[in-house]
Amino acid sequence: MLNNWNAAPDGPGAGECKKRLKARRLDLAGLQQRIRQAKLPILVLLEGWGAAGKGSAIRSLIRELDPRFFQVRSVGMPTAEERRWPFLKRHFAVIPPQGKLLFLDSGWMEESVREFLRGDLSEEEFECRMEQVRIFERQLASGGYLLVKLFFHIDAATQRERLEKLSADKDTAWRCDEEDWKQNKNYEKYRDAFDRFLEGTHRPWAPWTVIDGTDAVRAQLAAADVLCEQITSALVRPPTAEQPEYRWPLRPVQPLSQIALDQHMEEQEYQEKLKKYRKKLEALHNELYRKKVPVVIAYEGWDAAGKGGNIKRLASALDPRGYEVIPIASPTPDELARHYLWRFWTRLPKTGHIAIFDRSWYGRVMVERLEGFCSREEWTRAYDEINEFERALAGWGAVVLKFWVQIDQDTQLARFTERQNTPEKRWKITEEDWRNREKWDAYEVAVDEMLRKTNTEYAPWHILESVDKRYARIKAMRIVVDAIEQAL
Amino acid sequence: MLNNWNAAPDGPGAGECKKRLKARRLDLAGLQQRIRQAKLPILVLLEGWGAAGKGSAIRSLIRELDPRFFQVRSVGMPTAEERRWPFLKRHFAVIPPQGKLLFLDSGWMEESVREFLRGDLSEEEFECRMEQVRIFERQLASGGYLLVKLFFHIDAATQRERLEKLSADKDTAWRCDEEDWKQNKNYEKYRDAFDRFLEGTHRPWAPWTVIDGTDAVRAQLAAADVLCEQITSALVRPPTAEQPEYRWPLRPVQPLSQIALDQHMEEQEYQEKLKKYRKKLEALHNELYRKKVPVVIAYEGWDAAGKGGNIKRLASALDPRGYEVIPIASPTPDELARHYLWRFWTRLPKTGHIAIFDRSWYGRVMVERLEGFCSREEWTRAYDEINEFERALAGWGAVVLKFWVQIDQDTQLARFTERQNTPEKRWKITEEDWRNREKWDAYEVAVDEMLRKTNTEYAPWHILESVDKRYARIKAMRIVVDAIEQAL
Repeated sequence: MLNNWNAAPDGPGAGECKKRLKARRLDLAGLQQRIRQAKLPILVLLEGWGAAGKGSAIRSLIRELDPRFFQVRSVGMPTAEERRWPFLKRHFAVIPPQGKLLFLDSGWMEESVREFLRGDLSEEEFECRMEQVRIFERQLASGGYLLVKLFFHIDAATQRERLEKLSADKDTAWRCDEEDWKQNKNYEKYRDAFDRFLEGTHRPWAPWTVIDGTDAVRAQLAAADVLCEQITSALVRPPTAEQPEYRWPLRPVQPLSQIALDQHMEEQEYQEKLKKYRKKLEALHNELYRKKVPVVIAYEGWDAAGKGGNIKRLASALDPRGYEVIPIASPTPDELARHYLWRFWTRLPKTGHIAIFDRSWYGRVMVERLEGFCSREEWTRAYDEINEFERALAGWGAVVLKFWVQIDQDTQLARFTERQNTPEKRWKITEEDWRNREKWDAYEVAVDEMLRKTNTEYAPWHILESVDKRYARIKAMRIVVDAIEQAL
Repeated sequence: MLNNWNAAPDGPGAGECKKRLKARRLDLAGLQQRIRQAKLPILVLLEGWGAAGKGSAIRSLIRELDPRFFQVRSVGMPTAEERRWPFLKRHFAVIPPQGKLLFLDSGWMEESVREFLRGDLSEEEFECRMEQVRIFERQLASGGYLLVKLFFHIDAATQRERLEKLSADKDTAWRCDEEDWKQNKNYEKYRDAFDRFLEGTHRPWAPWTVIDGTDAVRAQLAAADVLCEQITSALVRPPTAEQPEYRWPLRPVQPLSQIALDQHMEEQEYQEKLKKYRKKLEALHNELYRKKVPVVIAYEGWDAAGKGGNIKRLASALDPRGYEVIPIASPTPDELARHYLWRFWTRLPKTGHIAIFDRSWYGRVMVERLEGFCSREEWTRAYDEINEFERALAGWGAVVLKFWVQIDQDTQLARFTERQNTPEKRWKITEEDWRNREKWDAYEVAVDEMLRKTNTEYAPWHILESVDKRYARIKAMRIVVDAIEQAL
């Protein structure tokens, strides 16, 4: 996109451009109310050469906007802390809620190209980055996000001239850093890398527009034109994206109905094994920490299947400074207003840490599917999106484990009844539990489909037969120990 | 507390201690449901010598707890990013919601003592730190938080022995760092500083308990005893604290009713001044950034007074990468479950950045007071708490400005009517606005009291007479320019 790129032909004169820009700004302000009503989330990514005018463009674009309606973020390079997260976490974390606009002054492109050119990313890793970005952007577009991606382009001479001018004034000298000069001195190398990234992440649902940054006003007008146009068209036809045809490397699974539940473990054996696995896990957790391997464990299962107690036993073997149990309830308004994976991305552990999700992203294909909280199209797409999410975690180096805690209907009834009849346990049982119980068959269909479609090699499901809770607890600990040992 | 401290007398034997500890853990688990019902937020701070057994104590205490009910955080020293915030921000950020327990493995004590001993804090700054901690802890206690503060104490010989043992094993070597050895080598110096901090922050509503860490099981039992006891007593009598008698350095204010509103500015003068102040602000923002001075601006005012437009003009002069407009709406469930200042502490800007709050913490003494969202005792206490909050900001080096955007009732009615009659403005006016309008007189009393009680030297109020919005906009910009110029 850059290598065969030609400067824009002379358009209207400077006065005319200014006039049009002013009008465009008012158009943008006029669109605010429609964006809010349509609940359209908009992410405007401005990338480009240092001193190409990204900052001034943002300033120009927002001039007439209601400040409650948009946000501007300057992303910068990841901090040492952020490097302990998967690449996408900090980018996923900032996505705007419905009805709002986010301007990003550089983002995943700058970060990736810079790391590639300084040799922190190999060829293969750079390709993998672009693949992650494509997935990220497609997931957002599928989720109704409008992505406006602008690349501000200037030639080497223009850049040098601007950098010199900025550096000469002490008030603006901080605006150009070493990296900007490095770009200028290695202009062709950077241009090729930028070009590669642009080509590699140019998709119909997240297209790049190259903006000629030579003249500031013209550039701002061009950016405003693109923004207005893409917003107007997204208001008429909400963003969407094409889902690739995947062939996930899936392991076979047994339907729930065929799972035997007659396992049993005596108290004495249980205590011995609990002790043994606790000791092992303790040692492994130390090693995980040292080797900075992250672990992500998701628990799903029937109400009253014994998830809580199971998690408790597993957690009791871990150093509390190195793990977190994350209970997932119904989403808050902030969460509902964003992509459904947002609240999981933002809660991922650091390297060396363990996150145990008590219910998880699988809510999308269970409760959200069955209660109609998302459309058929959304939950059918979610299997792939979840597989992609978990593949990103595995690619980051995480041990990913998923537990389905299984009981039969009679066991559930007995436990519900006991809860109802025991005053100190009564808070554990709600009307909703009884209602869900009536939908057992529908849930079973959904769970079977979920297990079948997401039982990947790198993030496998494990069934915890939990009619005998002791058996299930020991089995969970054994699986965690085995998986960590294998990873180390 | 440490200098005159004697090891605990011999208590019961090891077997008996273990038995009691086990029982205590079950007691704690039994308290969970009551804590949840009473909506009691509990913060357990574990401080102490390196290798004194804080980590093992946390692990022991949580053994029987429901993992959805508590969190453990290892705070560590602040990162480079965190050092750009006021000291308390990251500590305020982690406070637990109502009904939950948070265990902190070190916190504000470790951070402060360490910085003091390595010379990063002067004598005076160390004293100031302790004062901030006292205020923080008192505010939490007043807000219903139970603070359990434990200091794990061991003697120099015990510490040395443990550090040597930990260092010898590669799996545990990461657990003792340079700082631990430094403590051991300068044991007396550290003991004196610890002691000073303990004495300086020991208050009836946030008392320290020194735990003898010589024997692990005994120490854990002692910690469990204290925790159970303090929780049980807080369930009977909710935490509370004594409010100091302040004499704030207040500036006089005019009652709203005496403010003249007949200012006027012609369009031409407005455009010229807008341009002039924009230019000034632009330059000042660069300088702020370079000198890393933070700015916090709060806007309050009548509905339809023109806050939004005023903020927009001010913001349009700033570099969007260096400021954020933070709209404050009614609190989310997460926010409601915590201290009311939590959502403001967590949104403070970094040094060199500007935060503009569109409505603010003053909601406590306006809408929350008038709508009965907080008790009389709570909002009367809030004036002091807010002054303390703003003093902390000023002490951090921030420029703190507060605007009250003033109009009269007739002007409001005219603007409401215009909004109602203009289709593209209708979304701006709600039933609630009309309801609030009926309470004008009550609001005026509250606003007058607020202005009078919080018009401090370091965080002054400014009235923006906004019947003529142009006048109000230019006045706001001038005040911001003057305040920043003075600070620089």
